[in-house]
Amino acid sequence: MHLLIIGGSDAGISAALRARELDARARITLLLADSYPNYSICGIPYYLSGEVTHWQNLAHRSFNDITALGIQIQINEKAEGIDPAARRVWTRNGTGETRVYSYDKLILATGAVSIRPAIPGMDLAGVFTLRWMEETLALQTFLEQRRPRTALIVGGGYIGVEMAEAFTTKGLEVTVVDHNPTILKTVDRSFGQLLEGHLKEKRVQVVTTISITAIEQKNASTLTVTGTGGFRQEAELVLIVAGARPETALGESIGITTGMRGAMRVNNRMETGVPHVYAAGDCVETWHRLLEKYSYLPLGTTAHKQGRIAGENAIGGNRSFAGSLGTQAVKIFDLVAARTGLSDREAGEAGLSAVTVQTEAWGHKVYYPGANKLYIRITGEPHSGELLGAQLLGSISSEVAKRIDVLATALYHNMTIDQISDLDLSYTPPLGSPWDALQMAARSCQKATSRAE
Amino acid sequence: MHLLIIGGSDAGISAALRARELDARARITLLLADSYPNYSICGIPYYLSGEVTHWQNLAHRSFNDITALGIQIQINEKAEGIDPAARRVWTRNGTGETRVYSYDKLILATGAVSIRPAIPGMDLAGVFTLRWMEETLALQTFLEQRRPRTALIVGGGYIGVEMAEAFTTKGLEVTVVDHNPTILKTVDRSFGQLLEGHLKEKRVQVVTTISITAIEQKNASTLTVTGTGGFRQEAELVLIVAGARPETALGESIGITTGMRGAMRVNNRMETGVPHVYAAGDCVETWHRLLEKYSYLPLGTTAHKQGRIAGENAIGGNRSFAGSLGTQAVKIFDLVAARTGLSDREAGEAGLSAVTVQTEAWGHKVYYPGANKLYIRITGEPHSGELLGAQLLGSISSEVAKRIDVLATALYHNMTIDQISDLDLSYTPPLGSPWDALQMAARSCQKATSRAE
Repeated sequence: MHLLIIGGSDAGISAALRARELDARARITLLLADSYPNYSICGIPYYLSGEVTHWQNLAHRSFNDITALGIQIQINEKAEGIDPAARRVWTRNGTGETRVYSYDKLILATGAVSIRPAIPGMDLAGVFTLRWMEETLALQTFLEQRRPRTALIVGGGYIGVEMAEAFTTKGLEVTVVDHNPTILKTVDRSFGQLLEGHLKEKRVQVVTTISITAIEQKNASTLTVTGTGGFRQEAELVLIVAGARPETALGESIGITTGMRGAMRVNNRMETGVPHVYAAGDCVETWHRLLEKYSYLPLGTTAHKQGRIAGENAIGGNRSFAGSLGTQAVKIFDLVAARTGLSDREAGEAGLSAVTVQTEAWGHKVYYPGANKLYIRITGEPHSGELLGAQLLGSISSEVAKRIDVLATALYHNMTIDQISDLDLSYTPPLGSPWDALQMAARSCQKATSRAE
Repeated sequence: MHLLIIGGSDAGISAALRARELDARARITLLLADSYPNYSICGIPYYLSGEVTHWQNLAHRSFNDITALGIQIQINEKAEGIDPAARRVWTRNGTGETRVYSYDKLILATGAVSIRPAIPGMDLAGVFTLRWMEETLALQTFLEQRRPRTALIVGGGYIGVEMAEAFTTKGLEVTVVDHNPTILKTVDRSFGQLLEGHLKEKRVQVVTTISITAIEQKNASTLTVTGTGGFRQEAELVLIVAGARPETALGESIGITTGMRGAMRVNNRMETGVPHVYAAGDCVETWHRLLEKYSYLPLGTTAHKQGRIAGENAIGGNRSFAGSLGTQAVKIFDLVAARTGLSDREAGEAGLSAVTVQTEAWGHKVYYPGANKLYIRITGEPHSGELLGAQLLGSISSEVAKRIDVLATALYHNMTIDQISDLDLSYTPPLGSPWDALQMAARSCQKATSRAE
């Protein structure tokens, strides 16, 4: 039995580890296009900020820890073609040599690549995209050698706001430009505005409803970025973080269907439809548990889950992906924004008659020192009373990330908003309230959905 | 409609507020034996430590905020008898005057009182129990006037360890004495030992497997405490926090059945069996959702829930108590210990063939600064694979309280340990891992339960 995996990031490594766990004897080979297996790409902003001192620390596990399990890793070995009938993969390595690998089962874990907007100036020195380690190391080299004092970030999504913090930590003056009306469109606009306020407190400029149209070299160290609405700003560094697109060329070459955002379609066993070929991670569509349809959610958590399932099934197991709820958290300076399920906007886009109620509560009993305001948005469906989603925004000390996980667990079980009051949650004055902030917020939403019904 | 409520702590006030919310016109009267309505008794240690500067701040809501809702509060009005046939309650106030109150519905929310061990010396000056505000203010007066330098705490439960921190914060030298082999018997012994280590780091002495047998006056300022095993120690202040017993005299006088630890039995609508009489909070038994039987769990969270349900049903509603999972959290200096469901010991006592696995994980990705070890105990049932309970111990910055709530929500839904891996939990490197620590711990328990099955 030879399990061949193309890709060595979260999904690929998870697949390999799970296969090895279940089958001590299977031959397992990972083909990597680069030389950075098992890196935490979610940790890149903390390397570029200087908080992670060595890029090697970003590895979830060391190369040796993986190979010690009898998992063979081929670095700089790019898969160039697949013959699904003969079960073979062709590769080319860094020195141009080609090889052929046979497989019994194949897992495609090719991930995604940075979207490069089609605007002039993308190839200028000082313009960067950011997703993989090579992009990271190029940016780090630029930061060290050129010591830019100003950065313009195009895209106010997760990576954009994390990099705004990272560059600010490094001492750069930072501007974030987003074409949406507010940053972080994964949360509703009222939260986007609160986050913009926090970024401004931290001296990050935020410019919204602007699309970048060109980047030009002004002088040896300075770029000029122009955009819609007369936008024009200079910066010594321009970072384009405009999202990711799934890397599907290999999969499409053997006839794998693609869907949302061009990602490969897989069933809940992570099977592609091409015999013996599985796919997982940022290169595939993800089943949305709540919407009961496919979406594109390139997240580390999902990649780990899908990779593990692909690895288990490829080795003869039978496990199904339970679906994603789009649960996410991001730290932005002193705040954490988190979400699960559907935002008000997403529920509307899905054609659901959602009601969203935003409330404020203290993270813990206000008499105990250090209480901070927690902003909570609960989205529900009036007719059924079902919880559809939640968004939280609060201090890094208010357990925001695990609070959203409580509601992610509730959503997993299709709880009604009313039932949230029945949950037996913990309480101690330094950390909560007898009714947790989530339960008080759910009650406010419950009243509004009852009225709306 | 006149709703009469005896007791003005968590359950009584919650009942009154819910009744008012559902019925704007009902007459609602609260009878208080003392003059401290709606105080957060869970906050008392933080008042005695000096972190809460005024005892009035411990009120969840002010007297005026409650009476402004048209809820009448009679302070210092002790209920002395009930005539359930005539639906009347007799009271005596602070000046000895008696009154009679008629009711349509009656809610008993009489709470619990400190257990006073039957040992010599309990009435000496400098010996205190602690549950209600009067006990709190007496202790605070002693602290201010006598400025003791040493304190001996009898009982290493929640209040005992919180008071160990509080007295230490005040500058006292503290000893905690517990008759159990380890402190905090709501968690398993390995966690009790870890907590003892932390208390010792904070210069709190911990003495276990010792029962106190007598307290004597040594001199004007010093008491001598003796116990089993030759225990003998001097202290200027002795705090006895040996648990609580339900206050049920009134209820028993009208024939309400009692059960676990002498608490009143109620059904899931909080009905006592005596027509028109409900009961809620620390004076009643609590339905354990997992064990499917009655237990005694005098907790603020449960009192709030039960009070709210009693208030809703008394006013003509129909809501059921979903049961408790015994979810609790406690902060002890820099650590938080939290639990939900059954500990290994409790599962054993319940006759379940439980397997408990203790693991360690980082609270967040170790490459990001400030990662702390999280200790996790997962208890499962090998045959069904069901999650039975969890215990967490970790840094106050590791979101321990809301992490236990994730598993409390999982337990509410009778999840299997294996299913925990399917939960879509949030991740960002400063706050977690792609597989949350809980999921990694569940996986270790899953392996052990599979082997045990």
